Amino acid sequence: MFEAVELGQTLDKAEFKQQEHKLRGTLLELQRELAEEKVPVIIIVAGLGGAGKGDVVDRFNKWLDSRGLQTHAFWDETDEELERPDHWRFWKRLPARGTISVMFNGWYGNALGQHIRGELSNSELDEETLRINQLERMLTRDGTLIIKLWFHLSFEAHSKRIKKRQKSKHRVPDLEGHLYTREEYDQMLATAERLLRKTESGACPWQMIESDDKWFRDMAAGKSLQAVMQMSLRELKSSGNITRNELEPPPLSLDVPARTVLDKVDLGVSLDREAYKKQLRHYQKRLHDLSWKAYLSHRSIVLVFEGWDAAGKGGAIRRLLSAMDARLYRVISVAAPTDEELNHHYLWRFWRQVPRAGYMTLYDRSWYGRVLVERVEGFAQPSEWMWAYKEINNFEEQLTEHGTMVLKFWLHISPEEQLRRFHDRENTPWKQHKITEEDWRNREKWDDYKSAVNDMVAHTSTQKAPWVLIPANDKLSARVEILKTVCQRLKKSMEL
Amino acid sequence: MFEAVELGQTLDKAEFKQQEHKLRGTLLELQRELAEEKVPVIIIVAGLGGAGKGDVVDRFNKWLDSRGLQTHAFWDETDEELERPDHWRFWKRLPARGTISVMFNGWYGNALGQHIRGELSNSELDEETLRINQLERMLTRDGTLIIKLWFHLSFEAHSKRIKKRQKSKHRVPDLEGHLYTREEYDQMLATAERLLRKTESGACPWQMIESDDKWFRDMAAGKSLQAVMQMSLRELKSSGNITRNELEPPPLSLDVPARTVLDKVDLGVSLDREAYKKQLRHYQKRLHDLSWKAYLSHRSIVLVFEGWDAAGKGGAIRRLLSAMDARLYRVISVAAPTDEELNHHYLWRFWRQVPRAGYMTLYDRSWYGRVLVERVEGFAQPSEWMWAYKEINNFEEQLTEHGTMVLKFWLHISPEEQLRRFHDRENTPWKQHKITEEDWRNREKWDDYKSAVNDMVAHTSTQKAPWVLIPANDKLSARVEILKTVCQRLKKSMEL
Repeated sequence: MFEAVELGQTLDKAEFKQQEHKLRGTLLELQRELAEEKVPVIIIVAGLGGAGKGDVVDRFNKWLDSRGLQTHAFWDETDEELERPDHWRFWKRLPARGTISVMFNGWYGNALGQHIRGELSNSELDEETLRINQLERMLTRDGTLIIKLWFHLSFEAHSKRIKKRQKSKHRVPDLEGHLYTREEYDQMLATAERLLRKTESGACPWQMIESDDKWFRDMAAGKSLQAVMQMSLRELKSSGNITRNELEPPPLSLDVPARTVLDKVDLGVSLDREAYKKQLRHYQKRLHDLSWKAYLSHRSIVLVFEGWDAAGKGGAIRRLLSAMDARLYRVISVAAPTDEELNHHYLWRFWRQVPRAGYMTLYDRSWYGRVLVERVEGFAQPSEWMWAYKEINNFEEQLTEHGTMVLKFWLHISPEEQLRRFHDRENTPWKQHKITEEDWRNREKWDDYKSAVNDMVAHTSTQKAPWVLIPANDKLSARVEILKTVCQRLKKSMEL
Repeated sequence: MFEAVELGQTLDKAEFKQQEHKLRGTLLELQRELAEEKVPVIIIVAGLGGAGKGDVVDRFNKWLDSRGLQTHAFWDETDEELERPDHWRFWKRLPARGTISVMFNGWYGNALGQHIRGELSNSELDEETLRINQLERMLTRDGTLIIKLWFHLSFEAHSKRIKKRQKSKHRVPDLEGHLYTREEYDQMLATAERLLRKTESGACPWQMIESDDKWFRDMAAGKSLQAVMQMSLRELKSSGNITRNELEPPPLSLDVPARTVLDKVDLGVSLDREAYKKQLRHYQKRLHDLSWKAYLSHRSIVLVFEGWDAAGKGGAIRRLLSAMDARLYRVISVAAPTDEELNHHYLWRFWRQVPRAGYMTLYDRSWYGRVLVERVEGFAQPSEWMWAYKEINNFEEQLTEHGTMVLKFWLHISPEEQLRRFHDRENTPWKQHKITEEDWRNREKWDDYKSAVNDMVAHTSTQKAPWVLIPANDKLSARVEILKTVCQRLKKSMEL
């Protein structure tokens, strides 16, 4: 889920200064309106160490009116606090109606830290998310607006930031943070991902902020604040409630990014036929061995293939299959649902085909149709496909927690390459059946699909069930890349 | 929470037969309407072993049209099932639109059994409730109606039923169930309570059925089915959704019982002054020692006193206080909230007064005002006080999980006794300040308060934070009873 805030977005200082003036005026006005409506506001500033939470809070204190604004940090618990239930210290600091409390990490700090340090199991983390959700629901029902901001840093930026701090003359030992290895960093994100995903709701959505560049970060934080406050005041005027209905799915990002995850894919990679043949043989041999090993160790595998029309899904899948014993796998080509399938929940037909222990299921298109074609073509209502992110995450979590390896590929090509392939299909007799009117229609909605893919990756790429974006302008390198990725992940999953 | 289904309700066979005819017609008609609306229906029949779930399911199969009706029992998992995520077996059996699935225990059986057998920790049980809630929400969003029935047996009835089964000629070893000790039975209820409480929602409320008497049980089950189906069809017609909005609190029992928990209190008990003095001295001495012991072992105590006006709360509290060192306790007399308190969530002022480790707080009236006076007088909106049951349970759970002992007393008197005491107050110069116009007004709403007390006990009496109903027509015995209960619970809580 963090891929979508690792887009390398930046803002230069001059641009920041220019935008800041207007933003500040708007925020002050929003603060005044919220105070007038007697709304208590909680702003939770959370995220990775080194992401600049302190700087952002300083910025908020500068931008907002200090009357009716309080900042709370939750350091180590005091004796007074340790002698009472955990949440006591939060209750003490809840804002009165019409005022704002800015909270460092809010009620997320402890759970996050303890799980990262291995002091909480997954179940105990989930138990804590139950409590957090109860608290947040109780407060939003009572009219509190809770704004949750998560500041994300890429691994590289995180390391750089911590090193700089540790060298600084003004270092504060308690605040300098810990320099993580790549593995520790991934572990930290896995915890964050679990916690964020389970505390995301229609009424209390998380706003994700890319924080590698400090000017971009502060502006994005300010704009998120503004967007949530505006949305909430609109909500208040129309429905009488300050927060959105919990029955609605969490809104997608309020501030649409100019770049998407697909823009980061390098479509320039390629492989010559000689190297292709060699590598194909190599990885097919490995996959053959690994798939038997998976069978013997009861490791199930789910592979999902999505991608643009003519991106080469079929060809890539065939290269996988020819490496394996046909008794070990099943390919599901997802077409329009049958009557029986339509008479059930949309996930029902996918649950039915979950592989037994030791077997592999390859899905040529999948449950992601819900958030791709059904979204873009309007076959599903917005609330239906927006809920689907959560539903799909829960589904895949059940698979991975049961020990199934889940890997999802998006085959990415440029529109130009697609056009070339379409023409090629039309002009080649044995390929003509592969091109239909529908393919041309889909092509016209390229940008809609691009947004849909970005949201899909942002919401459903998890550490346990990641999306892998495959540059597929060159079919040969795409096939090898997919084979290689499957081999690597499969090997790793069996080592655990 | 099970007190409200241990009221000793019965129905004789003739009466059952007479009501059955009409009920059956109604159920068939409701089944037809739901099928016409293409609603998939899941009926979960859960509860204690021996409560007669099998008989009830047979009854449902007899009452309903067998076309479009399927019954599923989840025995030990098959190999096929064990090789896939837990929920796979439920997905396979979900009803198609327009049909009904009756499920023995549904997705509650495993979690319940494993927690009772100690194979699941509290956190792991909570993790499972998260998954259950996700599944139920996903299905209700998709238009499924989920009806959850819980069949409760009192300890006595449970033991009797199991013994009879074990002696039966037609015994089926797998089904005869286990004869529990009182302690095991309590442990089982504690698990059930935690699971039921955390899977109760506005859209999927639990229906509790008293099952000691089989004719009453079957009729109550049928009527619950009828009530939920009717409510849901009304909901469908008015809002387009089959289930109630999740933002609404779970409805209180749909079938208002003729008896309430207060009817079970024996107001005839009394104590002569001689015995009173002796016992008072005895228990005060014990409380004195226990309170110091609690202080030394950092055990906090929260005592809540609620009751009818003039039931003798003040006198009872004074008898407790005079036994203890004034440094160890604090009494909070709850009056109308201050401005500052009104500017926060209603629980805020109670959170603030949570005692430190080793201390005792006595609340003369409490957060229960929300579901008593605020409910009856209309100071709180129905949705506000209806949510309060959950909120209060969560609050008290945080106290007890932190090690605080929580005990709640309702002092019960008859309306005649209250009238006598009111007159006495009016006629005694130094008691006149204790009687106001408001007391007379409250008295007129006796029946409303009685329902409110019943719902309060049904929803907030938990094993860890129980309600104790004290017969208080005789002040002397009431005071001793309270002292004795505090001593017993305190001793037990320190033994754990």
